[in-house]
Amino acid sequence: MSTEFSKTDRTTITRLPKRGSYDKETIYAILDEALFCTLAYVHNGEPFQIPTGHCRMGDKLYLHGSVGSFYMRELAEKKLPVCISVTLMDGIVLARSAFHHSVNYRSVVIFSKAEVISDETEMYRALEVFTNKMQPGRWNDIRQPNESEWRKTMVLAFPIEEASAKIRTGGPKDDDEDYALDVWAGVVPLQTTRLAPVADPVLKTGVELPEYLK
Amino acid sequence: MSTEFSKTDRTTITRLPKRGSYDKETIYAILDEALFCTLAYVHNGEPFQIPTGHCRMGDKLYLHGSVGSFYMRELAEKKLPVCISVTLMDGIVLARSAFHHSVNYRSVVIFSKAEVISDETEMYRALEVFTNKMQPGRWNDIRQPNESEWRKTMVLAFPIEEASAKIRTGGPKDDDEDYALDVWAGVVPLQTTRLAPVADPVLKTGVELPEYLK
Repeated sequence: MSTEFSKTDRTTITRLPKRGSYDKETIYAILDEALFCTLAYVHNGEPFQIPTGHCRMGDKLYLHGSVGSFYMRELAEKKLPVCISVTLMDGIVLARSAFHHSVNYRSVVIFSKAEVISDETEMYRALEVFTNKMQPGRWNDIRQPNESEWRKTMVLAFPIEEASAKIRTGGPKDDDEDYALDVWAGVVPLQTTRLAPVADPVLKTGVELPEYLK
Repeated sequence: MSTEFSKTDRTTITRLPKRGSYDKETIYAILDEALFCTLAYVHNGEPFQIPTGHCRMGDKLYLHGSVGSFYMRELAEKKLPVCISVTLMDGIVLARSAFHHSVNYRSVVIFSKAEVISDETEMYRALEVFTNKMQPGRWNDIRQPNESEWRKTMVLAFPIEEASAKIRTGGPKDDDEDYALDVWAGVVPLQTTRLAPVADPVLKTGVELPEYLK
């Protein structure tokens, strides 16, 4: 099995191609770390975008939502082509010149079409993986979906077959003559931090913070 | 002058409409805080997405890029309709039931078309505002764009006239009967943190970290 995605017209990185990657593990790691994606589709010839949570299992990206969601139904019924992207911001790159200022980032773009998941086991597993991605350890601690909730939930899978990543790392790259300037240069790293959990004010008396949240 | 954007078919929040906001100040604050946006457009009937930096001045969102960028030229020359979104993730909402798990977020969606900025003052100002947004205090400390860099840079403005925000805040909302469960519930707040600046390994000797980075 190939460890790289084949380049297509849509996924080939043409601007700064050195930043491009088609490596599956690289792409999957970015998808797994990102807490949300944005999904773009075309309706009446015009572009629309939805930010939403996602998770990955194997070679598919999973989204879930309400069966009452217009865009979920559209994607499912019409098999519309979609473009899904995720972006992680890793740092602000401060160069000596305005022109070479940049950011360190890891982004992924996927082109795909929705498959409705009707298999209960796969649907259940997608919700479990999604929940545990947002908060590791959570799924086994909570009330599982009941029959009514089950019927209200739609899970869509998007096969990951046409995808690329674009990544910038490292310090600033200035023009040769600018290294002599008396300007501080470097990187301000960015980090997404999970702060201490805040209990629901109406939390039942005696319920303690679980180990996986400490 | 109205403090709210008029709702249109494209911007009216239909899913969970209570989370919708059309208030200008609310929308502008989200745009100003977000370090990147994703821009979606249609090419050959299919959706494409680009994550990119942005800044706002008044009632316009500004993007910049290379004059060699295919999508920048397309947006500029063809006046393609675009959909721009930004999303800020504020917390993971842990409910007692799987079904009511959620996230606290602030997102904005804008529908617009590009205007090429050819006025040098406006272009310069957009780059200054953008640079100082990424790192407050930076612009006056660095080498300004020279004639050659100037010619390589394209700045596009997108009038913000059709826009909405969607916002979730607060703790979990569970079904009445679930409040009796022995399940911890609450919010794990998320925060984007700027870590201590890392100097370029080839930083000129004697150049100190500026005040605005301390």
